[in-house]
Parts: sequence; C-alpha cells; structure tokens
Amino acid sequence: MREPQIEPAEGLPERVRIYEVGPRDGLQNEQGIVPVADKAEFVRMLAQAGLGTIEVTSFVSPRWVPQLADAADLLANLGELGLGKDRPVLVPNEKGLDRALDLGVTSVAIFASATQTFAEKNLNSSVDGQFDMFAPVVRRAKDAGMWVRAYVSMAFGDPWEGHVPIADVVEVSRRLMDLGADELSLGDTIGVGTTGHVTRLLDGVEAAGIGLDDVAVHFHDTYGQALANTLAALRRGVSIVDASAGGLGGCPYAKSATGNLATEDLVWALHGLGIETGVDLDQLVATSAWMAGRLGRPSPSAVVRALTGAS
Amino acid sequence: MREPQIEPAEGLPERVRIYEVGPRDGLQNEQGIVPVADKAEFVRMLAQAGLGTIEVTSFVSPRWVPQLADAADLLANLGELGLGKDRPVLVPNEKGLDRALDLGVTSVAIFASATQTFAEKNLNSSVDGQFDMFAPVVRRAKDAGMWVRAYVSMAFGDPWEGHVPIADVVEVSRRLMDLGADELSLGDTIGVGTTGHVTRLLDGVEAAGIGLDDVAVHFHDTYGQALANTLAALRRGVSIVDASAGGLGGCPYAKSATGNLATEDLVWALHGLGIETGVDLDQLVATSAWMAGRLGRPSPSAVVRALTGAS
Repeated sequence: MREPQIEPAEGLPERVRIYEVGPRDGLQNEQGIVPVADKAEFVRMLAQAGLGTIEVTSFVSPRWVPQLADAADLLANLGELGLGKDRPVLVPNEKGLDRALDLGVTSVAIFASATQTFAEKNLNSSVDGQFDMFAPVVRRAKDAGMWVRAYVSMAFGDPWEGHVPIADVVEVSRRLMDLGADELSLGDTIGVGTTGHVTRLLDGVEAAGIGLDDVAVHFHDTYGQALANTLAALRRGVSIVDASAGGLGGCPYAKSATGNLATEDLVWALHGLGIETGVDLDQLVATSAWMAGRLGRPSPSAVVRALTGAS
Repeated sequence: MREPQIEPAEGLPERVRIYEVGPRDGLQNEQGIVPVADKAEFVRMLAQAGLGTIEVTSFVSPRWVPQLADAADLLANLGELGLGKDRPVLVPNEKGLDRALDLGVTSVAIFASATQTFAEKNLNSSVDGQFDMFAPVVRRAKDAGMWVRAYVSMAFGDPWEGHVPIADVVEVSRRLMDLGADELSLGDTIGVGTTGHVTRLLDGVEAAGIGLDDVAVHFHDTYGQALANTLAALRRGVSIVDASAGGLGGCPYAKSATGNLATEDLVWALHGLGIETGVDLDQLVATSAWMAGRLGRPSPSAVVRALTGAS
C-alpha cells in the first residue's frame, strides 16, 4: 500500500528536485568495478524512472578511483542521454575539466572541503589552497557556458577534527559561490549531523547571502539520520536533495547499511507529504533491485527491501 | 565523534521518555528463542544504560508466541528490577492479567487494533468486540492499582485494508481511554506512515480530548520513515517514544533492516537536539552489540553498526 497523497504541509516545498548521485557517489564506493554497459543501463533506467538530474560519473584520476576509470566510455555509451545541464559530471581539477570539455559535457561539479584535514587528505591542499585550485576550474567552466555545482564536504562533522564549526562551513560556501558556482551541496559526509544542526547551518548560509534556492543537501545514513535531516532542510527552505538509488554508496565497513540517503526512502516520504518529485517509485525500485542483482547483494534501501521482499 | 548538544529547538520537548520495547516487541519477533538468563541480562543492561521504562515481556499464550513462554521465569530471575510502574508487561486478555497479578506486576499494556481485519486475525475479535474483551482487563487492573497502557496497532496502514482512516484510529483511541487506560501508544505496525500523516493523526487525537502528554508513538522502520515520523510527533507535542534497543523486532522477511525504531538512532537524534533522555549511549550500544552477538547477527541499528564497526 502507499500513503495517500495530501497537500504539502505548510512550510514545505510543493516540489523537490532530486539530484541523483547513485551512478557516481554510489558506484565509486563499490569494491568491485561495475561494467560500463551496466552503468549505462543504470543511468537509462534512472532517467526512465523520472529522475531529472543524474550525476553520471567523475573525471577523477583512475589511480584514485578505478571504479570510474570508464567515464569517457560511459558517456560514449549514453550519447545524448549523458549530456546536458541535468547530467553533471564531477571534475576534481582542471585536468578533469579538460576531459569534460573535450567530450561535450555542459554541467560539472567540484568537490570542496570544509575542513583542513580533509582538504589535505582528499585534495592534497588546504582550506585556503583549494580555492586557488577551483578558481580556474569554475572560471573556465562558466566561460564555456557550463552549469557548475560545488560540493561542501565534511559540512557537519569530520572524522579527524570532530564537530565542524558552522562559521567555517559558511565561509567555504560563500567563497565557492563567489567563485561563480551556480549551486551548493552541503554534505554530511560521515553522517553524524542531527536536525537542529541542519537548521542552524542553513540559517548561517542564508545569513551569508546565499539563497536557499541554490542550496542542496546531501546526507549519509551512517547514524540513521539522513531522512530526518533532509526533511529538516526542506522545512528550512531547501528544495534540492541529493540521494542515491537503492542507497548505494557509503562506508565499506558496513556494506548494506550506511550509504547515501536512498532515493526510494526519500521519495516515499515526499510522496506521502504530497510533494512532487516526478519519480515513478515502482520503476525506481525495479531499477535498484536490478542493480542490487548486478552487485550481488541486497539494496540497503528500506523501501526497496520492503517492496521487493528482499532480505 | 558526537554532535555537540544544544538547547532544544523551539516546539520540541526538553526531555523525552523512551519506552523501551526490545525485550518484548523485539525478542518476540526473533525466530529463535533467547535463553531466559540472556533476556534477564538484557533487561539489566538496559536499565543500567539509563532506560527508565522497559516493557519486560508478555503474558501471551505460548501457543502463539513461544518466544515469550518464559515470562514468569524472566520475572523471577529479575526480582525487584522486573517490577514496578516502569516495567510494564503486555497482557492480551484477562488470563494474562491473572498471571500478571499473581506475580506482583503493577504495570500492564493491552494491544488493540484500529482495523477490523487485524482485530479478527490478531485478536479473534472485531473492532467493537475488542472493547468487551479489554473492558474487564482494564477495570480489574485499575482496581488493583495498576498503571495501564493501550497500544493502538495498525494506526496508519494495514496490510489487508490499506490506508487506515484517521477517524477510525481516533475512535479506537478514545474508547481505550474511556475504558480507563493511562497512556496510549499509536503504532505504525507496518511502517508505511509519513510525517504529515503523523501530524494529522495527532491533531485528530487531541481534538478528541486526549492530551498528548498521555500519547506515545511507536514506529517501525520498514520504509525507512521511523525516525522522521518520531521527530514529527515530537514537534506536534508528543514526548513519549517507543523504541527497541538495536532495532530488534520487525518483519522476518527482512531480518536486518525493518524492525522497530532503534533506540540508539533515536538517542543520537535527541541528544544532538539537546533533548534529555537519561540514556548513556555508549552503554546502550554495548548492550545491543552484546545482544547481537547472542543472536548471531548484526544489529540493524545504524548507530550500533557505526560505533562498533560491525557490518
């Protein structure tokens, strides 16, 4: 059974744009490498299920993320379906941007850090230094007419530094927008945040002059908080939500439990609230069940499990 | 790392009373039968971790729930720790109440249905008929000075009937309170509800003259909605929440994923909001990790998995 749809409650958006990260953030965290034909089929099925925005892959170095070494092949396989404003590709640096430009990509995402330690470990840079790295990426992307998203990772907690001060996240967010980014995605990379923290962070971001229409939220379910945090963000004025079909992604030490917010669980919550997503839940569940079969393990999404009877 | 505790946000309670259902609702759904000594140790560890209210067991017929056939032995093992207002025992009928009275239990819970089909299947009765069954249970319990909780099961959806009308749930709730129950627990037995539905149901219950101070909520995570729904109830004025240590319980077809709201995941959310629970989260996680070891499978609680590195 489904919840009967009602009018959106006061203070909630009538429509949410889901930014699907399964093919990139999900599959890059798989231990195995999914064949490129399966990835292409996955993207096609997601688009068919009504997901308008799909982050397709990343032009990261295959040395660091061998799972996505086939980025160019995937785009070739997808053809027109893999291009356009609604098919962003992650580019870690100018080299990644060059590859994106060569292949006709018109929408890119960069991945910044709110903390010093993660900037060092993930970007081999620093909080300040990362802007020098991203400035030419964003400038050249905008000059080429691209749409640019900027992720702010470790926006709540950091495994090395602990609690991340809201002022630090706001400062990084402000500087990314000043570089020319079109959209921010605030990411709770390790999943520790709670609902009050979400609200306060969004208060801070808005107070810094960033309109919440340009802000997405990106939650991981490591501590079971992802959906609750997402709904808190919607109540605070956000209407763009990152999610991963089937809950793909996340920590390798807890394979079936702590990935990204599952798109299906999000859609269940939103449709129950009468919020439009454009997604056909049954088609989406079938897509994730199919991918779970390819990966050889059950989907971590509660909705996928419940509707398919998988254990 | 933990979220730094803040002042509770406006509209949220300063303190939540967690009604721990793991030993009863959790273990009754296990396929195997846990030894009585382990059950007693579980209750002791839960009490030690700061859970004030613990539903200890059920005086249900061993024919229906062999997992709890040891109810009297468990109480004998627990001694004083198993008795009192904060150690309710489920009694399905007068026969169960007789056993409770014999053993010095002073707090009981009855289990009603909001739907006709479940009343027939679970109670061998009807929505109307169940009140004839419960009336003498509640009257005799109150005459004996007991505290009485009434569960309303299938309060959101029903696997046979689909959506359950709010008016039906309110009517059953009102009649249970009229019988003399001290507290209601509104249960989303199959986990389909969403946050707007929670708010509307509580609106209806309150409009029927039932103070929300006497209302608990009981969510299952079958569709990943349990924590979000619980927080919606807290915003609407509820301050009593049912949860199950380690997320024990739930549907046998999805063993590690769709039980009750995990007490740990709830406590993480509440402490992050600065809401007091009296629970020591580390001790609680250790308790659930120990029980998971006894059961031979990982805990479905995200917090337990994250903090113990279990997969």
